[in-house]
Parts: sequence; C-alpha cells; structure tokens
Amino acid sequence: MIVKYDTLQQTLKTLLIQHSFADAEAELCATIFSRSTVDGYHSHGVNRFAEFLKTITDGYVQMNVEPECLMNMGSFERWDGKLGPGPLNAHFSMSRAIELAKEQGMGCVAMQNSSHWMRGGSYGWQAAEAGCIGICFTNTEPNMPSWGAKEANTGNNPMIVAVPSDSGHIVLDMSLSQFSYGKMWQLDMEGKELPFSGGFNEAGELTTVPKDILATRRLLPTGYWKGSGLSIMVDLLVTLLSSGRSTSKIGEMEAEYGLSQVFICFDASQLNVGSKHESLVQEIISYVQAATPAQEGGIVEYPGSQTIKRRTKHMAEGVRINDKVWDNLQQMLQQA
Amino acid sequence: MIVKYDTLQQTLKTLLIQHSFADAEAELCATIFSRSTVDGYHSHGVNRFAEFLKTITDGYVQMNVEPECLMNMGSFERWDGKLGPGPLNAHFSMSRAIELAKEQGMGCVAMQNSSHWMRGGSYGWQAAEAGCIGICFTNTEPNMPSWGAKEANTGNNPMIVAVPSDSGHIVLDMSLSQFSYGKMWQLDMEGKELPFSGGFNEAGELTTVPKDILATRRLLPTGYWKGSGLSIMVDLLVTLLSSGRSTSKIGEMEAEYGLSQVFICFDASQLNVGSKHESLVQEIISYVQAATPAQEGGIVEYPGSQTIKRRTKHMAEGVRINDKVWDNLQQMLQQA
Repeated sequence: MIVKYDTLQQTLKTLLIQHSFADAEAELCATIFSRSTVDGYHSHGVNRFAEFLKTITDGYVQMNVEPECLMNMGSFERWDGKLGPGPLNAHFSMSRAIELAKEQGMGCVAMQNSSHWMRGGSYGWQAAEAGCIGICFTNTEPNMPSWGAKEANTGNNPMIVAVPSDSGHIVLDMSLSQFSYGKMWQLDMEGKELPFSGGFNEAGELTTVPKDILATRRLLPTGYWKGSGLSIMVDLLVTLLSSGRSTSKIGEMEAEYGLSQVFICFDASQLNVGSKHESLVQEIISYVQAATPAQEGGIVEYPGSQTIKRRTKHMAEGVRINDKVWDNLQQMLQQA
Repeated sequence: MIVKYDTLQQTLKTLLIQHSFADAEAELCATIFSRSTVDGYHSHGVNRFAEFLKTITDGYVQMNVEPECLMNMGSFERWDGKLGPGPLNAHFSMSRAIELAKEQGMGCVAMQNSSHWMRGGSYGWQAAEAGCIGICFTNTEPNMPSWGAKEANTGNNPMIVAVPSDSGHIVLDMSLSQFSYGKMWQLDMEGKELPFSGGFNEAGELTTVPKDILATRRLLPTGYWKGSGLSIMVDLLVTLLSSGRSTSKIGEMEAEYGLSQVFICFDASQLNVGSKHESLVQEIISYVQAATPAQEGGIVEYPGSQTIKRRTKHMAEGVRINDKVWDNLQQMLQQA
C-alpha cells in the first residue's frame, strides 16, 4: 500500500485524539511518527504505532502529565518526564536544550522518567532544523550482552549527532548493537543472512544467521568491545546526568519505560558567525565525498544523505506501508 | 628491560628539560607519558616519546606559547592552543573544563591549533580524578576511509568518556578504527593475524592479515558504517566547536599537527549529592559484571578495569620497556 504523507499523518493524529491526546500533542506526535516513516524508518514509525498506543492503554505511558524541572545550573537542566509519551518528552527536552543554546551558546537537558522516544534521529533533525548542533542519547532495557558476557547486561543505547547545513542537515542515528532485532526479524522472514556477523549462536560462535542469534539473544555490540564499552558509558552518562533509572533498573520493570535521556545543543550561528559554519561543514563533507567509491559507480554517502533522498521521494510519491499494518490502523479507526 | 615508574618519569623529564621545557611543564608532560606507559599504552607513551621530541625539533610543535581564550559563553569556552605541545594543551583544556564544571555544573572547552594529545585516556583519568564526568574527542590526519570509500577521507578520531568512582574510575578510550596501525604493525612483526577483520586487501575484500591492510591503508571503521559515520560527526563537532582545522585541512599540513579538540565536564558531586553518585555507578557496574562470562572462568570487564590492573602491577613491579626504545632514550640523554 502506498500512502501519502498527509493521509498517514491525519490517520495517526485521529487515532491519538481517540486515545485522549489533546489536539496540539496529537499533531506533534503524529508528525514525529509520520516523518520517521517517510524517512524510511518504518520500524520506529508506522510499524510501531499500534504498540505505542498499547503502552498508553496498558498504563505504562501516562497521559496529561507535564515535564517538571528538577535542577537548573546555567547551561544544564534536569527534568522529570513523569512517564509521559516518549516522543513528546524527547521533543520537549530537545526544544529546551535549543532554547538554552540560543541563550547561552550551549545547553544540556537530562530527563529522567521518560518513555521510549521511538526514532532518536527525530530529535537530531529537530536540533538541526533549529540551527543547532545536537547530540542526544538514551538508555534502553537490557537487550545486549557486553563484550565477554553471555546475557544481556547493557542496552543498545542509541546515540544521535546532528549538524545543520544549508545543503541538507547531517544526522547520524545509530544504536550500539551491530544490527537491530528488527533487521534480524526481517532478514529471517525473508530467508536471508546478515551481511556481517551480528551475534553469537548456541555454540558461542559469531554468526550471520539471524535465526541463530534470535535464539540466543546474544547480539553483537557495534565493533565488538568498542560498542560494548560505549554502551556502558552511555548508560552511566544518562543515568548520572538525569539521576534516573539505569538499564539495570529498567530491566526490573514490567515493560520498557521510565528511561533516562540526555540532549545537548550548541547554537551553530554563535559558534561560527556569517558563512563560516557552512564553509566548515562543506569543507568536511566535500572532502568525504571526494574519495574514490569502493564500488565502481558508487557514491560515498555521509550520515543523513540517504535519509534525505528517501524523504524527498516519499514526500512526492507517497511511502509504501505494509498492508497488514495499514489495515490494522484503519480497523482501529473504525472501532473507536 | 623492566623500568620503575620513577626512573621512567625522571628520564623523560630530564630529556624534556634538555628540549627547553620549563620545570613544571617538563614534570607534567613526563608524568603524562609515564602514566600512559604503566597503564600499558606504550604506543602512546614511552614508545612515542622520541617522535614527540622530534615534532618539537622539527618546529611543528611550538615551545613557550600559552593557550589564548577566544570565546566565552557561560559554560562554553573556545581556546587557541597556539600549536603548543599536545599533552600540555589537552591537560590545560580539561583543567579549564573541570573549573567550569565546578563553578556551573558543566563546562565545555573547544581548542583549535592544538597538537597530538598522545593517549586521549590521560584526560579522561584527569577528569575522573577531579571528581568529574569527562568526555573528550579529537580529530586526526586523514587515516581511514569512510564506509564505501577507497581512500582515507576521515580520521580514526579518538573518543574518551570517563566517570569517577571510589572503586576505580571507569574510563573508555577508543579510536574509531577497529584496529590501530600500531596493533597491525605489531601483529605483522610477530607473524600473527588480527582476531577479526581489520580492513580491506588489494582485491577489496575484508581481511585479518595485517600486511595486506598495511599495503592498501584501507582500515576498517569500528562497526563498519557506524564507526564511519561517527568519525565524520566527531570531525564536524571538533571543527565547528573550535572553529579549527578539519581532518581535510590537517591532511594538507606537512605533519599531523594543528588538531581540533573538545573537552566536556560535569561535576559529579553537584549532579548527585552525598552517596547517590556512587550508588548509581555501582548499580550499573555490578549489573554488568553479574552476567555469566562468555568464556568459562572468565571475568566480565568494563572500560578501565583492565587498565587499573596493569597500573597496579606496573607501579609495584616496574613496567617492561622495549630494550631499543630504552637504549635510544639513554643515548639521547648522553648526547644532550
């Protein structure tokens, strides 16, 4: 099914209003889910929307709460997300970090008691669209064994770094496992293997067979010991800065909520005045792209370049959505 | 040759004084190199000391300069390192970030025109020893192809994250290539292979043979496209925050100097008062270590845990230094 952006956004907004979202919150939340989808991140967009609504009806995500400021020290603020909807809490936190950056050059907001923010890249694009360099990261439930461990004892803790540019913002959005569960489920359904080792099989050997990794749940950290170390440090950073739940404590909850997140912004126009910012960005990106492609006729990409291509295409032509996913949303609309 | 820490530190200090360092700067610089060595990072400690001195006699690294503050916006400051010695500039920058954090909760110092800081972990330990959560990163000369590129168009841009703890600070110090050139040279000399693919051979295939990677200079980024993206973002961050040289511009210099670096600190005791900081840290570390080891009888390590073991052993027993490296330093002492 090919769906136009406006149809998608209106459908999701209507469903959110049916789930007691106020109009402005429903508009913003539907926009975040829809933009993730046209950007090509269905797994954290439309495909996850029904599950997101269930976290509300299950009572894990709280409606009608407002984030509360717990600490303010110049450029740094700590907020309590009161277990509100993750995308709204994350958007609020990045907005506050942007405000602090506009006032003081830089800003850092740590939020405890948030919920799953869905696609972290959303808040990187948000910072860049506001003319800010943005960095954010979150912890997760325990879903990855650290290097040298057999069971999940850390999270795949996504990290986002965004830089604004007139020729298209540069946004890195990565988790710290080499592949996501979503990617492995998808390839397993299609009967395909991973392009590189993505975890360990029952015998404790690295493997490219998704089914074998899904059986052990021994995901490989990005770059072996390196992504493993970084995931532990991200959990420390978000927990200490927000004074919130660590991955360990999130693992004790009935579902993945109550997460800890950090949002950092720098105002690009104060750091480099006039055309200086753009010329430095172009110096770096044009150098990256000037290298000979590894594949003949290939293009050397950079973080965000492929997202912009997908977005442009899908905004013009509509975006393909799995029939079952779309039918399910239509049924929910009618049942309400 | 087994050398005691004090002997090593005194030897390096004497050589620095012979190279026109003032007493206090020689003391600090010798301590940084010696601590890196007892921590087990010879490649960025004693083994690199003669090369470090050569960057001074060659005129790339400037003596008798003082960093200059170019911009101050609350928690953020930009400094010009005036091409001074990298370890002194980095130590200065982290000290200033610590001061800002003690005053305002957090501090961020960006430095342009610095030199190679040697082992980045030094400044992570420095932050942790001052009771601060520290983050720092640097760019480098172009030494790694981005994912999908054939030639070096980005750097392996080291990243450091440090968290203070009463039971031993937690410090991650990693570059964004899967293996360093130093590691590959060492294994090649020993006739060994890398434990995992570390780059591409002439045929464009991933390989574990160090010689083949040294021939193409096509190093593999940590975690393929992920470390590649992160390295481009680190170059953007340090260049834009310091308004300094990007990896592209460093590649145009006659040697690897004039680097851009960023140092961020948070005062741990202001973020979590009383015993709260330590209890959150222990919650995370004990959870990581409680997982079943992948190897029977193994220990689940965390960032910095192995460094502390090496340091303790080498401070007590002395540290092994390559005979040629040590003899060379002794000859330099006598020639002066």
